[in-house]
Amino acid sequence: MTSLEDLRISMPRLRGRLDALAEIGAIDGGGCARLALTDEDRNGRDLVVMWMRDLGLRVDIDEIGNVVGTWPAESSEPPVLTGSHIDTVATGGRYDGTLGVLAGLEVLETVIGARIEPDAPLAVAFFTDEEGSRFPPDMLGSLVYVGGMPLEDALGVRGIDGAVLGDELVRIGYAGREPCPARPPRAYVELHIEQGPVLEAQGVTIGVVTGVQGISWTEVSLVGQSNHAGTTPMHLRHDAGFVAGEIVAFARRLARDLGPPQVATVGRIDLHPNLVNVVAARARLTVDLRNTDAEALAESEGRLHAFCDDLAAREGVEITTRSLARFDPVDFDEEIVALVDDVARAQQRSTMRLPSGAGHDAQMLARVCPAGMVFVPSARGISHNPAEHTDDADLEAGANVLLHVMLRLAGIE
Amino acid sequence: MTSLEDLRISMPRLRGRLDALAEIGAIDGGGCARLALTDEDRNGRDLVVMWMRDLGLRVDIDEIGNVVGTWPAESSEPPVLTGSHIDTVATGGRYDGTLGVLAGLEVLETVIGARIEPDAPLAVAFFTDEEGSRFPPDMLGSLVYVGGMPLEDALGVRGIDGAVLGDELVRIGYAGREPCPARPPRAYVELHIEQGPVLEAQGVTIGVVTGVQGISWTEVSLVGQSNHAGTTPMHLRHDAGFVAGEIVAFARRLARDLGPPQVATVGRIDLHPNLVNVVAARARLTVDLRNTDAEALAESEGRLHAFCDDLAAREGVEITTRSLARFDPVDFDEEIVALVDDVARAQQRSTMRLPSGAGHDAQMLARVCPAGMVFVPSARGISHNPAEHTDDADLEAGANVLLHVMLRLAGIE
Repeated sequence: MTSLEDLRISMPRLRGRLDALAEIGAIDGGGCARLALTDEDRNGRDLVVMWMRDLGLRVDIDEIGNVVGTWPAESSEPPVLTGSHIDTVATGGRYDGTLGVLAGLEVLETVIGARIEPDAPLAVAFFTDEEGSRFPPDMLGSLVYVGGMPLEDALGVRGIDGAVLGDELVRIGYAGREPCPARPPRAYVELHIEQGPVLEAQGVTIGVVTGVQGISWTEVSLVGQSNHAGTTPMHLRHDAGFVAGEIVAFARRLARDLGPPQVATVGRIDLHPNLVNVVAARARLTVDLRNTDAEALAESEGRLHAFCDDLAAREGVEITTRSLARFDPVDFDEEIVALVDDVARAQQRSTMRLPSGAGHDAQMLARVCPAGMVFVPSARGISHNPAEHTDDADLEAGANVLLHVMLRLAGIE
Repeated sequence: MTSLEDLRISMPRLRGRLDALAEIGAIDGGGCARLALTDEDRNGRDLVVMWMRDLGLRVDIDEIGNVVGTWPAESSEPPVLTGSHIDTVATGGRYDGTLGVLAGLEVLETVIGARIEPDAPLAVAFFTDEEGSRFPPDMLGSLVYVGGMPLEDALGVRGIDGAVLGDELVRIGYAGREPCPARPPRAYVELHIEQGPVLEAQGVTIGVVTGVQGISWTEVSLVGQSNHAGTTPMHLRHDAGFVAGEIVAFARRLARDLGPPQVATVGRIDLHPNLVNVVAARARLTVDLRNTDAEALAESEGRLHAFCDDLAAREGVEITTRSLARFDPVDFDEEIVALVDDVARAQQRSTMRLPSGAGHDAQMLARVCPAGMVFVPSARGISHNPAEHTDDADLEAGANVLLHVMLRLAGIE
């Protein structure tokens, strides 16, 4: 018989579940559309809950629709929890979130099959509405789980389609009874695809996630003067489109001036009236700023606002800003970070420490328990896209690191 | 009895017709929506044709729906023609085009009332689809009138609502029998609001239009790489949104470097997927370049293309360009330009010579006969907007200049 440290998950079993779940809400190009609390999300939930029950887990559903499968079913101790989410963006891939949930399920099946009896129960969760694509903000389910947002507020959130979150939870049968905020788990560790190009570029298999970048989303609204593009001399213009372009160019300079890990992105621009021969009267754009350092993040915000003030005066265009979202940087638990690194190296995996550029449920759990994350490479860094891909060898490596990190956190090995 | 040179139009009568026509297709804010060949356009046409017939003009409708009212009705000589258009953009004002048609009608009523017998007949026209808002390109009716576009091509143009131009002409009863291209008139002069801020800024009443700027519209399409805004380091990005912003900033520099009268406008930008946290995969934007000098216009186009080539290589973003429209600059007839200036000065009006930044039917007529234009000020330069406004005193001044320019062109005075 092999020793405990040689215990490995079954990749064919994990692959089978990944493929089965990907069929729900499948879209062209091999991706998935399971927006939170839609029929597709319900069908995905039903499938994962069926798998949890087949394994003999106790399935608890809480008031915001988070689902936790615990083993042993009869245990009432705080578990070593893993998980992620199974909702997707409208043009999602097969791995974002899904990997963490199904690898967690695979870890539990592996442990159960090996007849191991850990000191603490093991559990796998999927959290409601991590993407925030239908109901803002993102990470809503885990935020409510840790007490960061009142349940009543969350149930009242109106979606982009006008639906109310609480109504949709009832409609799909996932308005559960477990109270929110929940009792904190013993520890939380989440496996996720990187969703960025760094691991692939470095040729590294396991990303040891040190924390999550702070995020600042600013919506910038511009009011200039609509004018005829042919008849208005340049010096008499108050061109909202030009000002938008200047802010785009500034964002790049800002990231360059502050240096890595600062990033800055203008991903959305809407001009009005958006016609070839009309100087734009109005514009709205967003600036996404991220940094792992709280002070540097605040510095980047300050520079953006100062630039906008100068620009408004110079161009005679009214500029107003509004914060759409803001999360300070999160540092993961040092012991869990070290444990992930140790376990991966013991399995002869190349590792590198890196912060997460994206938000994850783990950053919410970090508010109430020791938390950490494991990353595996994303081909060409592509995510939120049907072309999202990670090689099976990397998925398997990540799941095996997760397995042994959870066993160690549960007092085994 | 007053001498011929003291003959003046009736502002109350002109005001009455302006107000009556503005009620057709009236929209909030005091503007008009009479998109070409819609029911509103037909109702406007019917009203103007009724006024033409009431004055005893011969009304000719040609194969593209241009309407010409001629006096004396029995004359078959080439007329001194004035006119403009009565179609509007979707959010049009009361004066763009309409002024030229109704002032022309007022000129004819004034001449008829004064029992003057000019050497050449006088005529007033309204041309089909000058705005091009429903059926591209703009100035379509006058373009066909002068033989710049085959009739069959024009009749087959499909509108933004899917309608076919020829079908709509028949539907509203304006598919006429006069052949296109038409027999050239003796001369053409058009009164129009400036649609820009120059006359008002200079405190001048009469703009003596020297020509029409050349226009070059380029659609720029960008294909980069969609990436997560948090996880993708700046140096690994191929950001179509950033490239779009760089082109916006370049357009301003281009206009500054070439100097007036060069103008450059990015009025339309569309990003995809246009989300706050996604590096844009694709973008499409338009660059509107204008100059009165053909060589300078070509220079501006060349610099734009060179900049795009460099930028594409530097950012790893594919850039393709497509010409949406291109008209070389037009110079109006020197004698008509001088005549407009002389007549306005003789009426104690302040004048300045300036090119038109916008396209007008007069630039098409300039291909087949001596042509010119008279501008009156636009309050704050606003046009294509319900707030479009010109003071009655300026409208009256412009119509009186038109009156005497037409009389001189018809061999009187």
